[in-house]
Amino acid sequence: MPRSGAEARRRLQQAALELYRERGFDRTTTAEIAARAGINERTFFRHFPDKREVLFDGEADLRAALVQEVADAPDGLQPLGILLCAFRKAGRILEENRPFSEPRLAVIARTPALRERDLAKGAALTEAMAEALRRRDVPAGLADLAAHTGWATFHHAAQAWIDDPAQPLDAHLLQAFNDLHTLAAPAPVADRTS
Amino acid sequence: MPRSGAEARRRLQQAALELYRERGFDRTTTAEIAARAGINERTFFRHFPDKREVLFDGEADLRAALVQEVADAPDGLQPLGILLCAFRKAGRILEENRPFSEPRLAVIARTPALRERDLAKGAALTEAMAEALRRRDVPAGLADLAAHTGWATFHHAAQAWIDDPAQPLDAHLLQAFNDLHTLAAPAPVADRTS
Repeated sequence: MPRSGAEARRRLQQAALELYRERGFDRTTTAEIAARAGINERTFFRHFPDKREVLFDGEADLRAALVQEVADAPDGLQPLGILLCAFRKAGRILEENRPFSEPRLAVIARTPALRERDLAKGAALTEAMAEALRRRDVPAGLADLAAHTGWATFHHAAQAWIDDPAQPLDAHLLQAFNDLHTLAAPAPVADRTS
Repeated sequence: MPRSGAEARRRLQQAALELYRERGFDRTTTAEIAARAGINERTFFRHFPDKREVLFDGEADLRAALVQEVADAPDGLQPLGILLCAFRKAGRILEENRPFSEPRLAVIARTPALRERDLAKGAALTEAMAEALRRRDVPAGLADLAAHTGWATFHHAAQAWIDDPAQPLDAHLLQAFNDLHTLAAPAPVADRTS
């Protein structure tokens, strides 16, 4: 049995991810996750409230990192440029943990219960980034819109990375933000009166 | 007791919305919703699987309407222009049902359990819109990105409408898509090598 709490958490996360991939989230119990990790089930619940949260352990760190990167981004960038900076740094963390982060994203994408939790985490994260932009004096409405559309673009890039892992996440991120630029460049619409 | 199924559904939705506003979602039971609607609780469960779904009854209609509008949008529009067209039509439906749709959005925004369900519905809707764009020969990657960022922009506009109901939803939609245009107009970023 691992002595350190951090090591126990890491083993539980790895075991959960393996089991969700092998037999699916719905057919995996917390007892099985604990057994695979060589840890007893009571210890599982000391670390995680349920079998969804075990895959979202890094979320608070990710949020803190993104907020910090928004604060630290160079002066003179536009709001989406600031967010792209922040996502690229976060992307490096995901890339470095790829043996875990890539199958994790794939399992989430195909499991409705995990997808729902992921969306809720994303919404909280978006709110934190909007607040970080406001602290850089981006007007509230633009900060909110930039955070929502920037997060949607990041999410799109992460999915593209899962589908095409031959390219690094960073390349998918640059591509996605360039594509957003292309999409939004034409005047939005036409007819303001219809 | 209302005879028609449609009338029963409408009354259950209205009763649920009232109770969620008065005492909050968590402290409202399906029995109370049924009682307020003058309907017995078993009938509630013939119409809705749970007390979350009662507020999402219109989602299938909205999805169908948006997909149809994407198909029917004029030729020559760019992907985000097509989506804006579709959202404006959908927005008219929300505006016409404002006595229901506006407090509904407000209750969802402040209730985590409803927000989570709303996010999942939004993700399904985004996927349907991306598919509709692909059927108009928008390349798959751009269709997905446009649907995600377009939906984020629609969501932002709907929130702005709740916060500032003095302006119609349509005005908020045009403003939001114009703001996205402004945000995404500068080249995304700078440094491709760092």
